[in-house]
Amino acid sequence: MTRTLKSPNDVRIVAVVGSGVIGIGWILHYLRMGLEVRAYDPAPIARTRISEMVAMSWPIMEELGLRTGARMGNLVIAESLANAVATADVVQEAAPEDVKIKTQLFADIDAVAPASTIILTSTSGISMTLIQADCANPGRTATGHPFNPPYLIPLVEVLGGEQTDPEVVEWTMEFYRTFDKYPVFLEREVPAFIASRLQEAMWREALHMIAAGEATVEMIDDCITEGPGLRWVVTGPVMNFHLAGGPDGMKHVLDHFGPTLKEPWTRLIAPELTDELRAAVIDGCNRESAGRSVDEMVLDRDRAIIAVMKARRESAEAATRRRSR
Amino acid sequence: MTRTLKSPNDVRIVAVVGSGVIGIGWILHYLRMGLEVRAYDPAPIARTRISEMVAMSWPIMEELGLRTGARMGNLVIAESLANAVATADVVQEAAPEDVKIKTQLFADIDAVAPASTIILTSTSGISMTLIQADCANPGRTATGHPFNPPYLIPLVEVLGGEQTDPEVVEWTMEFYRTFDKYPVFLEREVPAFIASRLQEAMWREALHMIAAGEATVEMIDDCITEGPGLRWVVTGPVMNFHLAGGPDGMKHVLDHFGPTLKEPWTRLIAPELTDELRAAVIDGCNRESAGRSVDEMVLDRDRAIIAVMKARRESAEAATRRRSR
Repeated sequence: MTRTLKSPNDVRIVAVVGSGVIGIGWILHYLRMGLEVRAYDPAPIARTRISEMVAMSWPIMEELGLRTGARMGNLVIAESLANAVATADVVQEAAPEDVKIKTQLFADIDAVAPASTIILTSTSGISMTLIQADCANPGRTATGHPFNPPYLIPLVEVLGGEQTDPEVVEWTMEFYRTFDKYPVFLEREVPAFIASRLQEAMWREALHMIAAGEATVEMIDDCITEGPGLRWVVTGPVMNFHLAGGPDGMKHVLDHFGPTLKEPWTRLIAPELTDELRAAVIDGCNRESAGRSVDEMVLDRDRAIIAVMKARRESAEAATRRRSR
Repeated sequence: MTRTLKSPNDVRIVAVVGSGVIGIGWILHYLRMGLEVRAYDPAPIARTRISEMVAMSWPIMEELGLRTGARMGNLVIAESLANAVATADVVQEAAPEDVKIKTQLFADIDAVAPASTIILTSTSGISMTLIQADCANPGRTATGHPFNPPYLIPLVEVLGGEQTDPEVVEWTMEFYRTFDKYPVFLEREVPAFIASRLQEAMWREALHMIAAGEATVEMIDDCITEGPGLRWVVTGPVMNFHLAGGPDGMKHVLDHFGPTLKEPWTRLIAPELTDELRAAVIDGCNRESAGRSVDEMVLDRDRAIIAVMKARRESAEAATRRRSR
């Protein structure tokens, strides 16, 4: 079907359905972006909790910087789902992570929202194809998976279900970009998407280590914050290896350290390092490098890590001062 | 045996054996700490490469801050292993990651180093028990595993082999603390230790995703740098979940999200969430929290993430300016 979609710049009203940590986070984010927000949660306690949480975190929004017109007063807590979505350009659903709840909720939202409203789920892993299954108009539904806290972490994973219109996915990417997010588009519906899968692999290995008495919680956290975490936040995990490989970068790493994939270095079995996989990783590093040499990028990385360490230290010192007052 | 160990504060000379990325990194670090460094590498090209690399990276050392007396002139490139270690208080070995090479090298260093010299390997995963096997005096050998770049990343994983004297391990911890490192002591010899295991779990999952066409290199790097990476560098991966769990923290997370461990969210099989494992993770989070509430820590985390994002952005902008000059 052909769809007339307004420019993301013309979005004025976002409805947020659900008011857990993620729902409240979205409310804060969209308020900070200068939008009007309609919040809805069926729980009787929600009204008080939403108001309190938004007020508590508003100073953080001010630190981040408010867009023109942004104010807490742009939030209306609706009495019903129909009221919340009646005038919304976009609905951002953040209900509990349960396929039955979300599928039913999407059918309900779809039934009462204007035809032009885009409906997005915050699911961290449930298939969009299942969530949209009972919608009369599933083409306008898509996934926009945020990361906690949604008012702070830029990443949003965007994907469609089997019935999602391709232009709705494109529009969703543009919508998030317009409102200060960093959307990444997934062509495939992979369980847990990308970031949570990577996180989950590390989390499971950490749990194995704790269960086996090989490490404590503190050792695991220290090892990441004082170790590889400093590199990942600057270069990402793949580019990090590229920069450790000398002038030949990832090519050297794969040819030199490929055999360690056979070592019992985690409980996760390694993939076969085929020629295709080798080429895909090396090509990806080259694309990301965009013509910059490894030496040049190492220097950039070093300066960025120094800046991150300094910012982190100053922030920790400020926290200690706040606590001792 | 009883050992008389000088205070780490009295360490004056460190020998670095090997001059790859890690060896050069250690040379820079110890020079920055105001120590005299004796470098040795059997490769004929090493002399030139060491001098060039140290000169190239010295501005980064200056940005990090030099200790009193620190200067490039404190580096002597030795003509032989014996010369390099003859007067060294500490030897930091950084030879290729090969058990035969390291075991032989440790026997050689042990044979020519003064009895009071502590000998440390940079191995990222080889058992210290194997590396020290052919030493006449293995009690003074231990592992100090750094992270690339060693002049920048604070973490050093410290562990002994079966024949290492316990006081040598303690001394090594104190030595690294004295010279601006963040040592973490491992009681057990686990293949790849802690940080590299966690890194490797994520790396293998990333390779699987690339091999399966589920994600590209760029998507993986973007998802970490703009997503969970921002949290890990501030709180670590376990504490990150604690802070996402609301007032009950990790207890809520394990009871609520425990079932997702059964989901196919990575190719790594999850451990059984036993009562013991549950208690170990919750207790660890409570110890790390040191009396701070989740709300209080969330606020600290948010401010730290804002500071890290700002530092990272400014650093990226500076890099772009450097490149466009």
